[in-house]
Amino acid sequence: MPAKTTSPKSEIFVTMGDPAGVGPEIIARAFGSMDHSSDVRFTIIGDKDILDRALARQGVSGRGNVDVLDCWEALSGVEPGKPSKEGARKSLRSIEKAVELMMAPGDISPKALVTGPISKEAVAEVSCGFTGHTEFLQKAYGADLVTMAFVGDNLRVVPVTRHIPLKDVSSKLSIDLILNTIRQVVENGWLMTGVDRPRVMVTALNPHAGEGGRMGTEEKDIIGPAVLRAREIYPYVEGPIPSDVAFYKALGKPEVIVLAMYHDQCLGPFKMLDFTNGVNMTLGLGHVRTSPDHGTAFDIAGKGIADPGSMIRAIELALKAVRRKS
Amino acid sequence: MPAKTTSPKSEIFVTMGDPAGVGPEIIARAFGSMDHSSDVRFTIIGDKDILDRALARQGVSGRGNVDVLDCWEALSGVEPGKPSKEGARKSLRSIEKAVELMMAPGDISPKALVTGPISKEAVAEVSCGFTGHTEFLQKAYGADLVTMAFVGDNLRVVPVTRHIPLKDVSSKLSIDLILNTIRQVVENGWLMTGVDRPRVMVTALNPHAGEGGRMGTEEKDIIGPAVLRAREIYPYVEGPIPSDVAFYKALGKPEVIVLAMYHDQCLGPFKMLDFTNGVNMTLGLGHVRTSPDHGTAFDIAGKGIADPGSMIRAIELALKAVRRKS
Repeated sequence: MPAKTTSPKSEIFVTMGDPAGVGPEIIARAFGSMDHSSDVRFTIIGDKDILDRALARQGVSGRGNVDVLDCWEALSGVEPGKPSKEGARKSLRSIEKAVELMMAPGDISPKALVTGPISKEAVAEVSCGFTGHTEFLQKAYGADLVTMAFVGDNLRVVPVTRHIPLKDVSSKLSIDLILNTIRQVVENGWLMTGVDRPRVMVTALNPHAGEGGRMGTEEKDIIGPAVLRAREIYPYVEGPIPSDVAFYKALGKPEVIVLAMYHDQCLGPFKMLDFTNGVNMTLGLGHVRTSPDHGTAFDIAGKGIADPGSMIRAIELALKAVRRKS
Repeated sequence: MPAKTTSPKSEIFVTMGDPAGVGPEIIARAFGSMDHSSDVRFTIIGDKDILDRALARQGVSGRGNVDVLDCWEALSGVEPGKPSKEGARKSLRSIEKAVELMMAPGDISPKALVTGPISKEAVAEVSCGFTGHTEFLQKAYGADLVTMAFVGDNLRVVPVTRHIPLKDVSSKLSIDLILNTIRQVVENGWLMTGVDRPRVMVTALNPHAGEGGRMGTEEKDIIGPAVLRAREIYPYVEGPIPSDVAFYKALGKPEVIVLAMYHDQCLGPFKMLDFTNGVNMTLGLGHVRTSPDHGTAFDIAGKGIADPGSMIRAIELALKAVRRKS
């Protein structure tokens, strides 16, 4: 029993996500298929019964040296594939518990968090103002700035602005916001790309990068100056590059991160190619948080057909983060 | 000499584009490699000497039954790879001449236009307010609405708005604009997809399609109602679909056209995959206009290394258009 005798050097918490979604089964399959070494302690935050049922349904015989922390009372009326307020409340509860454990002082460090898929719409109904893990964690950690980053097989992308109307993007952009986002990306560049000095391609906001000001001035007034200042300390930043050139140049280059000005600018190209393998990361919390880049998939939950690939990659990225630090 | 004895049923004009760019050589290579049947008459509008020199440089022995119309005085000081005001003026002149010939009454119909690459920036310097072929042709034809469409191996996309600052997109969108663009796309759907009833996926404007109004209201107020009205006459239209879902769903489906709300929304994904093979089309002129979806590439002009693939596809699409109509 070597797993019990070696003391873990780092710790990863995994929230189960919505108990009625595919979270339990992809976590079960991920831990059923992954090779666990004892240098990292895993704790799944959710419900032992549900996880064990998911394991049984998947035909997975064990979950390695992984603990489960029951963080809620026995569930009533939550079944796979059936979204409910109860399920939404529980998924929020598991995130709250994770934050509590992540922030608790303890002898194991570093830590990382992997979150299972939740239904944002359902959680927003039981918790007014909830817009997603990223914003929730930012508030819970009291972080001035967090960055949402995506890592896939084909692209690595970061939007500077996130969940706001498109028409508000221009007024939300500032030199400081872009500079600080570049800083968080560069600090986590190795984690996203595997190289110490990733190339950061900063996109333009307007068609043809504004074409000298004829189609918008944000490139001249905001993005260009931010890139110039970033290059003083980090010469591998380039831009502003028109959207319809940046992704073409970045594609298939593992050392490139595209820093985009808004959500759909980078998530259109990213999800087109990396929908099934992408990992969503939150940077700026002090701990890395990763997550599979897909939703609860209520329509296939409990059927044993959900692809655990994205969850496995999310766990692997969390492992990479804690092993780099420890 | 069957080519001379069969009278052509339709006519395609090809503008040479900037004489210092790759236009002459990709046209030379395209006509050197294509199989010409005599049912279509081709006229290249530009400069016979330059074209013949380009043919010689490419080692192409002939240009089939293709006429060249010298549309300008002998050029002075225009060399491959060297942009100049002279070259910009000539490229504009060739487009003006093409419009004149396209609109002239005559016994050959239908007609189509293929335009060679020009430098928009250079033409704008000699002709104030020039923003591109699409807008120039719209004005020259007196068309109320024209649509810019892109056809590639992987995607087929259409932006509803084009060369305007991103922050002005929301105020430019209207139910009528979206409906009329859908109409022009549907009318040319076969040309873009090869099927009579293409699926038209209309994108949302905001992240997550506005998420019920929490991140923007254009989906509820404009895009949704436009799609509903379009479906009354054309049930193969669907949307609004979030950007980060639409391209994933459309990829690799030749019968799908993505109708996007703005330039970079569709050209980011499109050019990422179809940069080297894409064709740009203008719909709504009465005649189809096609063009390779790349620029003058001054840096490689005259070196004999420019890829004629996109020009060949532009000519093939024009051929498809006139043969369908004749």
